[in-house]
Amino acid sequence: MNTPDTSNANHVRIVEVGPRDGLQNEKTIIPAATKIALIDRLSACGFPVVEATSFVSPKWVPQLADADDVLPAIARKDGMLYPVLVPNEKGLDRALAAGVREIAVFTAASDAFNQRNINCDIAESLRRIAPVIERAKADGLWVRGYVSTVLGCPYQGEVPLSDVTRVTRELYALGCDEISLGDTIGVGTPRKARAMLEACADDVPMAKLAVHFHDTYGQALANIAACLDAGVRIVDSAVGGLGGCPYAQGASGNVASEDLVYMLHGLGMQTGVDLDAVCDTARWINGELRRAPVSRLAQIPNERRFPKTSAA
Amino acid sequence: MNTPDTSNANHVRIVEVGPRDGLQNEKTIIPAATKIALIDRLSACGFPVVEATSFVSPKWVPQLADADDVLPAIARKDGMLYPVLVPNEKGLDRALAAGVREIAVFTAASDAFNQRNINCDIAESLRRIAPVIERAKADGLWVRGYVSTVLGCPYQGEVPLSDVTRVTRELYALGCDEISLGDTIGVGTPRKARAMLEACADDVPMAKLAVHFHDTYGQALANIAACLDAGVRIVDSAVGGLGGCPYAQGASGNVASEDLVYMLHGLGMQTGVDLDAVCDTARWINGELRRAPVSRLAQIPNERRFPKTSAA
Repeated sequence: MNTPDTSNANHVRIVEVGPRDGLQNEKTIIPAATKIALIDRLSACGFPVVEATSFVSPKWVPQLADADDVLPAIARKDGMLYPVLVPNEKGLDRALAAGVREIAVFTAASDAFNQRNINCDIAESLRRIAPVIERAKADGLWVRGYVSTVLGCPYQGEVPLSDVTRVTRELYALGCDEISLGDTIGVGTPRKARAMLEACADDVPMAKLAVHFHDTYGQALANIAACLDAGVRIVDSAVGGLGGCPYAQGASGNVASEDLVYMLHGLGMQTGVDLDAVCDTARWINGELRRAPVSRLAQIPNERRFPKTSAA
Repeated sequence: MNTPDTSNANHVRIVEVGPRDGLQNEKTIIPAATKIALIDRLSACGFPVVEATSFVSPKWVPQLADADDVLPAIARKDGMLYPVLVPNEKGLDRALAAGVREIAVFTAASDAFNQRNINCDIAESLRRIAPVIERAKADGLWVRGYVSTVLGCPYQGEVPLSDVTRVTRELYALGCDEISLGDTIGVGTPRKARAMLEACADDVPMAKLAVHFHDTYGQALANIAACLDAGVRIVDSAVGGLGGCPYAQGASGNVASEDLVYMLHGLGMQTGVDLDAVCDTARWINGELRRAPVSRLAQIPNERRFPKTSAA
């Protein structure tokens, strides 16, 4: 399956989560056609993975109630993954009916967060996830696992590292192909982020771990750079810095894909992503949402981006 | 003099440049009383160095034409430094008349940038700076040197590392007590930033070097983290992310002091700075300028900042 090219230490696989994590929190319902266009534009940008939508109950995430319409309508590109969020077996049934090939399951490293987000504790969430993964694997699906609140929880505060590593280990044991470690409220700083990643990599191969940062405290890129130093090669981001967490107070958007791509290319990393196209997509989707882009790169016209700039 | 506490590898000296680099570009003239209040508030925050104003010709920087009124009026705190920008001997005369004790001289690693900024090439700029430093040192002043465009120039594009190290070395040889390496247009990424710093540290002691990042491309904190790894312990920033460079297209504000302080404290570094007070000051000065804060931390109410947050 599509896993990072571990033969090339300079290759980073970006998981573009804008259509799901980026949009789920929007209050005004976005037309399905816009979501489909966004996903297709992101495919064209060269992202190897685009998280397409969520089969969480429309009662909880009304913005993505059209998942059954969106998923079958996207233009799938060969070799690309389009995971969708699946909370339970009922969600899996819906996703399978819509032709899903990749899913993402989710829990948190904090009982308090899970109680408010999915109304059960960590142990119960893993009991619910287990049969979802089992059925998905039996059907040949690729499965991503999310662990939220890995560097702090808006309800319980500090999250013990041992809880993060335990949940990560258990999701891996249940059969996840890859596990994304999420700083849901964006409070982490580079040293803690790296230590958290390295602790998880004691139990799960680094090549199976992703990092997922929100930029609430402005630390996302610094944290990613530190985690790259520690060896991670899968990084989540959202075009235009879209997003936030509906159940976490103060959680602003995901790290912006275009700012991430600029950093990675500056670090000599390969991503396969066309930065001009990402910036264009960021400006386009922000226009659809009637707001200014929050990312830095989207505010710079492509033709004026360094080092293209010549004497004025 | 006030130099970094090199006996404590965990101490970072933040040079708050908001009142000068942050305000110089503002079009609406700010009252001197507001500038004085800003400097005094920043002193109270615990910043060890506050760059107060500029004695560049009012023709070039009209916003800081009141330097002669501002500098004598600030409430100096013992042990603190309040450098002011001085372009030439005439500026030094003005600064001395206003009771200056610390100055900052400046040039760039790019001839093209200097030509547009100060109307001469690097060599000529150093010839102009030499007598300023000489007189300043004879008068017992502390002298900071700035090197702009260390990671790219808006006019010539790439800046050879050898030009950066040469200018840095020459400023040090001329007698600067400390040299700040400025990514004026914010285009650097962590690996290049670190390599640039390390190359400069081959010639000048690391304890005498500062890094100065603008956040135009969102890379500032990631670059600072990489430079901290390389050993730098003096970092420039501006409250509220104020600022920009009047002669550099696309140059947005300085890295925000409050976002920097959050990162440094998260890294286990000591700064002596009160984060609550910096956030309050950022919100206050942004209110005076009638705009929303651009920093992340200033957008989070102090009492809701992690990890103070308790169950809602």
